[in-house]
Amino acid sequence: MASGKFSLSTSTHMEFVDITDQLQQAVTDNGIGDGICFVYNPHTTAGLTINEGADPAVQHDLIGVYREIVPKNFPYRHLEGNSPSHMMTTLTGSSVSVFIESGRLQLGTWQRIFFCEFDGPRSRRVLWKIMEG
Amino acid sequence: MASGKFSLSTSTHMEFVDITDQLQQAVTDNGIGDGICFVYNPHTTAGLTINEGADPAVQHDLIGVYREIVPKNFPYRHLEGNSPSHMMTTLTGSSVSVFIESGRLQLGTWQRIFFCEFDGPRSRRVLWKIMEG
Amino acid sequence: MASGKFSLSTSTHMEFVDITDQLQQAVTDNGIGDGICFVYNPHTTAGLTINEGADPAVQHDLIGVYREIVPKNFPYRHLEGNSPSHMMTTLTGSSVSVFIESGRLQLGTWQRIFFCEFDGPRSRRVLWKIMEG
Repeated sequence: MASGKFSLSTSTHMEFVDITDQLQQAVTDNGIGDGICFVYNPHTTAGLTINEGADPAVQHDLIGVYREIVPKNFPYRHLEGNSPSHMMTTLTGSSVSVFIESGRLQLGTWQRIFFCEFDGPRSRRVLWKIMEG
Repeated sequence: MASGKFSLSTSTHMEFVDITDQLQQAVTDNGIGDGICFVYNPHTTAGLTINEGADPAVQHDLIGVYREIVPKNFPYRHLEGNSPSHMMTTLTGSSVSVFIESGRLQLGTWQRIFFCEFDGPRSRRVLWKIMEG
Repeated sequence: MASGKFSLSTSTHMEFVDITDQLQQAVTDNGIGDGICFVYNPHTTAGLTINEGADPAVQHDLIGVYREIVPKNFPYRHLEGNSPSHMMTTLTGSSVSVFIESGRLQLGTWQRIFFCEFDGPRSRRVLWKIMEG
């Protein structure tokens, strides 16, 4: 399997970063025709999701609902104060996988792959592995 | 890897569609003994989940809680009005994977694989890939 | 692919069980160098997640927020009374996957793999498959 990683920097406390281009580049650079691209986030206050990328308002709305759903004021025990960020991570998940066909990530018309920053700004890493077949 | 896709139609705004039989059929048709079945949903207002299929009341309850959790009235910016559907998609996830043993999806006793419609009725697609091994 | 399973017992209604050591052991026992470890939970009232393992308070906080988010009193139809546990399962997901590099699960500094009991105490099973490459 081809594998690799890349870094990114976030600039606010919560934001979605579109990482589709970096992953498509990995597919292209490794000359993959068909297969599956597995993407992994090694952080505990960030997640990965696939959602609409055409209208940035969707990302804004998703972040707003995360803040609404996960209580800010709660008898949290974790002293770092970022328990909401940990909860958002578990609600979102740490990995995504996307099929590859004829050298292209087989995303739906509106789908893009997002790194979800829940406790930024920070320097982050994303790992990927591509299985051919 | 064997791969394929199938279509389905939903008839209401929110519903769960049991797609286990179609996926088991793909395993059987391709003569797979052991492996992993990867399932992918290319839509941004629909998800995939694995949950109880014996009592349809569970699906009804899950839909009810989704509606309760994700606010309908919120200062959403996305003008299409379906931001709650996008949020439900990210909370649920766009893919599932199930092991295969001796030609059968290795689901637990009560588990079934569901396509989760969050913004229907619509025509939808489901993609799958099966890795042997 | 190497594959296997192990059992675990939970002792309360909701708890997180760290299963990282059992999975690392599977990697080691099978002499895997590089690859992906796929982990699957065959239960409909339990999930799998990857989150912080250093401070047990994080697990406590996550369980508290699950209870806060998913309503206990709701017009549920499922007569077994554990619809909240089913909802937590769908919010969390039934599988996780972790990369393997040089014989080690490639987890981030603070990441551990958790079995999430949402309707215990019970005897539970976890399945895994490891793909080399």
